[in-house]
Amino acid sequence: MMNRHVVVTRIERAEPTTVDGLGAMGTATVHEAIGRRGFLGAELRPIQREVRIAGSAVTVLSHPGDNVMVHAAVEVCEPGDVLVVTTTAPSTHGMFGELLATSLITRGVRGLVIDAGVRDTSELREMGFPVWTRHVSCQGTVKATPGSVNVPVSIGGVVIEPGDVVCADDDGVVAVSRGEAEWALERSQVRLDDEAATRARLAAGELGVDVYGLRDRLAEFGVEYVDRLEP
Amino acid sequence: MMNRHVVVTRIERAEPTTVDGLGAMGTATVHEAIGRRGFLGAELRPIQREVRIAGSAVTVLSHPGDNVMVHAAVEVCEPGDVLVVTTTAPSTHGMFGELLATSLITRGVRGLVIDAGVRDTSELREMGFPVWTRHVSCQGTVKATPGSVNVPVSIGGVVIEPGDVVCADDDGVVAVSRGEAEWALERSQVRLDDEAATRARLAAGELGVDVYGLRDRLAEFGVEYVDRLEP
Amino acid sequence: MMNRHVVVTRIERAEPTTVDGLGAMGTATVHEAIGRRGFLGAELRPIQREVRIAGSAVTVLSHPGDNVMVHAAVEVCEPGDVLVVTTTAPSTHGMFGELLATSLITRGVRGLVIDAGVRDTSELREMGFPVWTRHVSCQGTVKATPGSVNVPVSIGGVVIEPGDVVCADDDGVVAVSRGEAEWALERSQVRLDDEAATRARLAAGELGVDVYGLRDRLAEFGVEYVDRLEP
Amino acid sequence: MMNRHVVVTRIERAEPTTVDGLGAMGTATVHEAIGRRGFLGAELRPIQREVRIAGSAVTVLSHPGDNVMVHAAVEVCEPGDVLVVTTTAPSTHGMFGELLATSLITRGVRGLVIDAGVRDTSELREMGFPVWTRHVSCQGTVKATPGSVNVPVSIGGVVIEPGDVVCADDDGVVAVSRGEAEWALERSQVRLDDEAATRARLAAGELGVDVYGLRDRLAEFGVEYVDRLEP
Amino acid sequence: MMNRHVVVTRIERAEPTTVDGLGAMGTATVHEAIGRRGFLGAELRPIQREVRIAGSAVTVLSHPGDNVMVHAAVEVCEPGDVLVVTTTAPSTHGMFGELLATSLITRGVRGLVIDAGVRDTSELREMGFPVWTRHVSCQGTVKATPGSVNVPVSIGGVVIEPGDVVCADDDGVVAVSRGEAEWALERSQVRLDDEAATRARLAAGELGVDVYGLRDRLAEFGVEYVDRLEP
Amino acid sequence: MMNRHVVVTRIERAEPTTVDGLGAMGTATVHEAIGRRGFLGAELRPIQREVRIAGSAVTVLSHPGDNVMVHAAVEVCEPGDVLVVTTTAPSTHGMFGELLATSLITRGVRGLVIDAGVRDTSELREMGFPVWTRHVSCQGTVKATPGSVNVPVSIGGVVIEPGDVVCADDDGVVAVSRGEAEWALERSQVRLDDEAATRARLAAGELGVDVYGLRDRLAEFGVEYVDRLEP
Repeated sequence: MMNRHVVVTRIERAEPTTVDGLGAMGTATVHEAIGRRGFLGAELRPIQREVRIAGSAVTVLSHPGDNVMVHAAVEVCEPGDVLVVTTTAPSTHGMFGELLATSLITRGVRGLVIDAGVRDTSELREMGFPVWTRHVSCQGTVKATPGSVNVPVSIGGVVIEPGDVVCADDDGVVAVSRGEAEWALERSQVRLDDEAATRARLAAGELGVDVYGLRDRLAEFGVEYVDRLEP
Repeated sequence: MMNRHVVVTRIERAEPTTVDGLGAMGTATVHEAIGRRGFLGAELRPIQREVRIAGSAVTVLSHPGDNVMVHAAVEVCEPGDVLVVTTTAPSTHGMFGELLATSLITRGVRGLVIDAGVRDTSELREMGFPVWTRHVSCQGTVKATPGSVNVPVSIGGVVIEPGDVVCADDDGVVAVSRGEAEWALERSQVRLDDEAATRARLAAGELGVDVYGLRDRLAEFGVEYVDRLEP
Repeated sequence: MMNRHVVVTRIERAEPTTVDGLGAMGTATVHEAIGRRGFLGAELRPIQREVRIAGSAVTVLSHPGDNVMVHAAVEVCEPGDVLVVTTTAPSTHGMFGELLATSLITRGVRGLVIDAGVRDTSELREMGFPVWTRHVSCQGTVKATPGSVNVPVSIGGVVIEPGDVVCADDDGVVAVSRGEAEWALERSQVRLDDEAATRARLAAGELGVDVYGLRDRLAEFGVEYVDRLEP
Repeated sequence: MMNRHVVVTRIERAEPTTVDGLGAMGTATVHEAIGRRGFLGAELRPIQREVRIAGSAVTVLSHPGDNVMVHAAVEVCEPGDVLVVTTTAPSTHGMFGELLATSLITRGVRGLVIDAGVRDTSELREMGFPVWTRHVSCQGTVKATPGSVNVPVSIGGVVIEPGDVVCADDDGVVAVSRGEAEWALERSQVRLDDEAATRARLAAGELGVDVYGLRDRLAEFGVEYVDRLEP
Repeated sequence: MMNRHVVVTRIERAEPTTVDGLGAMGTATVHEAIGRRGFLGAELRPIQREVRIAGSAVTVLSHPGDNVMVHAAVEVCEPGDVLVVTTTAPSTHGMFGELLATSLITRGVRGLVIDAGVRDTSELREMGFPVWTRHVSCQGTVKATPGSVNVPVSIGGVVIEPGDVVCADDDGVVAVSRGEAEWALERSQVRLDDEAATRARLAAGELGVDVYGLRDRLAEFGVEYVDRLEP
Repeated sequence: MMNRHVVVTRIERAEPTTVDGLGAMGTATVHEAIGRRGFLGAELRPIQREVRIAGSAVTVLSHPGDNVMVHAAVEVCEPGDVLVVTTTAPSTHGMFGELLATSLITRGVRGLVIDAGVRDTSELREMGFPVWTRHVSCQGTVKATPGSVNVPVSIGGVVIEPGDVVCADDDGVVAVSRGEAEWALERSQVRLDDEAATRARLAAGELGVDVYGLRDRLAEFGVEYVDRLEP
């Protein structure tokens, strides 16, 4: 009973305006705003450049080298979602390609985050379907082993619940829990404003050690300024 | 005797039209068509984008950090070939650069697949000489240790015989044995046609679970559809 | 005493014309010219393409996940410098982003080499601030632990002294010790000239085994030319 | 508010007899019994051999290279616990050594699972304090950055809640959620009994393909038995 | 047809005395004797110490995370064999444990070489069944996807044909092709004798540079002997 | 001139009693004592257990897969030395085995630290010659490319000058610069004494947060103690 495989068909999502707001912020801002949390790790890289998205997570937990549950997940996707695929053990397979992307695009899905591999990367870029992945691989999969859709999954030490907000850009992927999304957006906006002010001062030649008040801290740390290094 | 170093000067190649046909297919299609085999692994990555080639393998087995046998291989290359370089132990060296590419271009070679490193990547892209490599590194090599040309080599668990067809694009590299090349092309074409039909149905909004008849399989697997996840 | 944390404010730099000359050479040429030394390893990759720079190293030795010393380093940077950041243990954090780049640009710094991670990669490319890094990560850092600026550091087995010349392009990063910079430039120029001559011969169809005189060496190595491989 | 750092002082634990029962089962049995879940990944390795334990998880989420929260966690440990330490980004530091083990032993803690590094491994083996770790490293840490104790953490894609049962032996570490512990123990016992029966048959020379009824399945898969491989 | 899955039931093996002779030599000796070939790579490590074996390879090519073909392979094993298991893509699963070992022991199989993972390592050591593996993992597998037995496989760039001689000890695994086994044994014996003579000279204080005649070579290389390093 | 290959025959060493004193301390203690510096990284692992040594570094910088310079280094070794071998690019080769160990033992060398691979590990353990290495591999090397002996080398970001003191045990390897050796020994002794006092208090049940005065710091960090985690 406790280890049954399920497809959860109904999930709660954050407000669309909140999701879109977070999408505009960029992962670095959101990650900092919520207390330096939620980053899925430096191994998930985009196959395209200069794309920034956010969406509600539809999650897949799959056997490695098997994409039957990715197909099963399509049906429960809604416009504004991001598909998040994980495997029960490390996998380098290309578990996703342009046919699955064709399906997802018809459903308004905004992109894919996968802790395994993808293929048809050239076609995916052409179609404008953004992907963050651990591997690129033309190696195909079987459809022989069950898994689950919309259960909590985990990538890079970060738990992603179905309906959490997934933000992704050239710097990687950040997950924001649904209940914190609104708060995350507000904090991100505050941070953006602060950064704009800081940027202006730095661009005018002020030093970060002064702007951030680090001189005292360096002194406390015992960091000494010397003219040259004595051997 | 049995471990002598050789340069095999004459190899059998597949029909040029077969090779060119496979080149147009894309690695994902060819890999699937021949039974999900032949992929050289997710670590070999292109240094360029949106290039798709196929060619007959001229193989090199080299000491790590030594490219003398790559030079020796140039002489036996013919138009339509792809040079495939492996080392007897892992190597990160840049064993290949624009001077070697200059030579290969004069001989009509279509690209390089190397299970080590390359350098002059900017120049190689400018020259339009495509490369799939494990590493990019400006670190140069010596010419001090023998190896062989046109012996069977192996990358990522796949054996490549001289004259096998090597297909490469943004999704990686697939090797097709020479004797299977014709059959692989036919199967790839069948697959492409099938995919076109599938794509049309998916683009029209049909679901993959229906198109591929996966609903029964999911039920057999014991996958349950539930409204929400009970804790 | 011996393990105090310091910011060394004055360092010797190579002649600007020498630095600029080396910058034009490309890392593969410089690396070969100085005896195949100085390469910082294949793991440091550029976040942009087709950029080639050289500059004088301002070095940072930092605690992992902490960028306070990067801020401290800005003040001692001068036009023509390249910031070189290392950590006392492996770190995937995004220790550097567009605000720090804004500061460095105002001081005329030419780029960043970092044996950890960076973020804001999209913005950094837009600003035209080149970066070579081990990781891309939006994960932010604290400012809680001391380190040093302008002490000798080491990346990939190569020691970089403050003021050494750092050359970087699509093939990676090479460090040239300050005292050898002039000599390195001369040798690089000689090598470029030699390569131009070689390139012309190869482009005309001459073989590398002849141009480099490798036939005798292959014979000495016991490499045999055979028509086909006997089983 | 939402990203505050906390030390949760009171957690629920599974029944001691259940925990001890699971400890006797071995990770492979428990992992299979609960549906092939809960394995923390092949990178966590024991520093000793032939030790098998289970305990209730006290969890630590720490900044990399900083062990202040490990010290904070000691106070909330009780007899029968296992300390589970994770970091917010990859860390190779030796965050734990014999002094911390001395403290934990006085509190009856059974072992350590850490997704970073440990040191004093020779002393830890001598003290009989078992450890499963990603790295062994004498590199010490600072005490400069906050974290949390007894919050949910995640290793290798598996979420560990405080109070979950952690089983560890030479094959790695498996986490069983507290609510499933009783059920897991029953299933493990059933599996052990089944295996004993199977083992007897296999030891008597019966074949696994017959014992497990795999011959039909192989036939369905299209696996053919042939005398020799035709080329 | 060409990608069918097969179990080849009859394979040729080397002479038992040759196999046993090679087993006594040690991998370093055999590897050198046959021309520094055949090493399966530094990632395959023994789970025990001080065991040295050789046997005839029965090979398995398996889907990752699926061990049905390992079960199928048991039936074709004979006394003196070594089971060699590979997967079509990287796998960390524990694909083999003590039940399979129980079966193999009844058939006189001498050990396992697996390019994936094993579990029950404590029990395997107790049973005296030696294993060389890439991973240790309690994570179990399914039996859902076909593969092949006794087809050529490849590990670490080395092709292993069924019936080849596999030698393994604390230094790793070396494969010797069946047709070269006799020759390999002779050469290994010669090498052992040579080494005994060399060892005696070195133990008596003679220097390797003299015993191996390297002084001239160092001079040719341009290596200079100096009293101290001038800066 | 500047990139010539040299064997430096005379190096300065630390006082034997200082070296021996450091050897007794253990790497964790020495590393902490000198300010958390000098650790060569978690990848260098011992092939034996429960061995603790220190010695004066004789350094080798070698071409990967080539051990001619290791042979050249033997001659300049003296009793109490530790041989430290690095390569100009990553290498997995077994560059060192029991014949070289035989030579080194006759000269009183205490052990080997190698940033590549070793073989004959079983024999080395039997001979009691301790080794810290990145890889174990039976793969042999050539003697075809020059390198240097007793030049500064670098492992894991740490520079090792000839004559520096190398300490190694089960926790890894730490390098202490020759000029700091005396000071390092004194500081290590102080630290050992402090730790003995701390150990007694912890063993008596005092908490580390009290012994180290961390309660105030945790409060400053904003760490809150709560009874349970509110969702």
